[in-house]
Amino acid sequence: MRILLTNDDGIYAEGIYALYLELKKIGKVTVVAPDSERSSIGQAITLAHPLWHKKVKRNGRFFGIGLSGTPADCVKFAVGVLMKQKPDVVVSGINLGHNDGCSVFYSGTVAGAREGSLMGIPSLAMSLDTFVDPDFRYAAKCGAKITKMIAQNKMPQGTFLNVNVPHKKASQIKGVKMTRQGMIPIHGTFRKRIDPGGREYYWMTGDMPVKKIDDRIDSNALVNGYVTITPIQNDQTDYSFLKKLENWKV
Amino acid sequence: MRILLTNDDGIYAEGIYALYLELKKIGKVTVVAPDSERSSIGQAITLAHPLWHKKVKRNGRFFGIGLSGTPADCVKFAVGVLMKQKPDVVVSGINLGHNDGCSVFYSGTVAGAREGSLMGIPSLAMSLDTFVDPDFRYAAKCGAKITKMIAQNKMPQGTFLNVNVPHKKASQIKGVKMTRQGMIPIHGTFRKRIDPGGREYYWMTGDMPVKKIDDRIDSNALVNGYVTITPIQNDQTDYSFLKKLENWKV
Repeated sequence: MRILLTNDDGIYAEGIYALYLELKKIGKVTVVAPDSERSSIGQAITLAHPLWHKKVKRNGRFFGIGLSGTPADCVKFAVGVLMKQKPDVVVSGINLGHNDGCSVFYSGTVAGAREGSLMGIPSLAMSLDTFVDPDFRYAAKCGAKITKMIAQNKMPQGTFLNVNVPHKKASQIKGVKMTRQGMIPIHGTFRKRIDPGGREYYWMTGDMPVKKIDDRIDSNALVNGYVTITPIQNDQTDYSFLKKLENWKV
Repeated sequence: MRILLTNDDGIYAEGIYALYLELKKIGKVTVVAPDSERSSIGQAITLAHPLWHKKVKRNGRFFGIGLSGTPADCVKFAVGVLMKQKPDVVVSGINLGHNDGCSVFYSGTVAGAREGSLMGIPSLAMSLDTFVDPDFRYAAKCGAKITKMIAQNKMPQGTFLNVNVPHKKASQIKGVKMTRQGMIPIHGTFRKRIDPGGREYYWMTGDMPVKKIDDRIDSNALVNGYVTITPIQNDQTDYSFLKKLENWKV
């Protein structure tokens, strides 16, 4: 199995290395990831600047290619330039921080998987629900298991999996839930500050309020201690509204 | 009507000004747009850097706020910081270049409208199908008309409109088609070059092959001379695959 691995935390991140160690037990892994962190970069692509690539070692051995671009660039570059054959699976992660709910719009990790899926390759985004002191080992094993499954099972063309893992010991994880995407918007909170030169600036933080009541929704099941697997489709047409729209006289 | 106007070509772009001139005939327009071009930035948001804002004049008069961020940042900043009341409509554009088909994943213009829609505001992305010598006047009139319509008609929560306009004279435009999103992936082509210091780099271009045969698809109808209106929904869950996924034993 040929596996293409990317992320948005950058090629030197802990999460991608933990996942790499598990994935190389089940296939041939090609790592192409941003040369530095590109968190919350969405599905941005780099058209107005050149892309630089360099070989990156980790623990004294060749690990992969660091690219001066985004996760979506990395997948395009890997498939278009580096790999002789299309990968069988594209895996993106493990992200430091959850990517459930409306994060799927902003996340570079999720965009890496979407990019693979747009090319017709079964794809998977993996995220861990913590921002501090991460232990990626359980999520990495989980990622390898689901990677095998999406390579073997039939995935619909144009759909990929978005997986979020609670930051808990394996024994404390309640199970796996197949979920839908939460739709509570990420509320931008802006803190006004003054720079050393006296100019006003703002710093944005994103708050995502989560209700715990409905485990069929990814954000809820995740905080309740479940691994969540959400199938995300690329076709964003609202077909039911399209029918009504046909009656509008523009 | 309170209209929030943004784009991804930047606050000094021609397209946003042409649209502004038409929109101010029908409502109170607040312009918040990136301080420079942010094309193909997707729905990136700026969390790791501060956001700077400045007042921008055009033709000697106050025009709007230029923000050191992305279109999604601009909508969040406008609603979260600048505007006392939520806008009635969010409009993004007019983009220099079409944003049909798989462009909706990469386009900052489309992301600006999606961001408004995530906040529950009727939203609209406008793009013109040319990269050279644009004449935005017809598209701007078209944008104002559709803006009025989405403010008056009931739009489903979580759905916005993605509008593409052919670059033709009004008399040559064949009409308006309500369309679905084209799904042909944008193929990344990489040109290998050598920099002045002898280092290898790549420049990516995006090719989107278009078939003309099915005018129910945005890309096709656009090249065939129609204004296309595609309803894009925010919920990306693949509900039909979700049912099957529930049988997977993970």
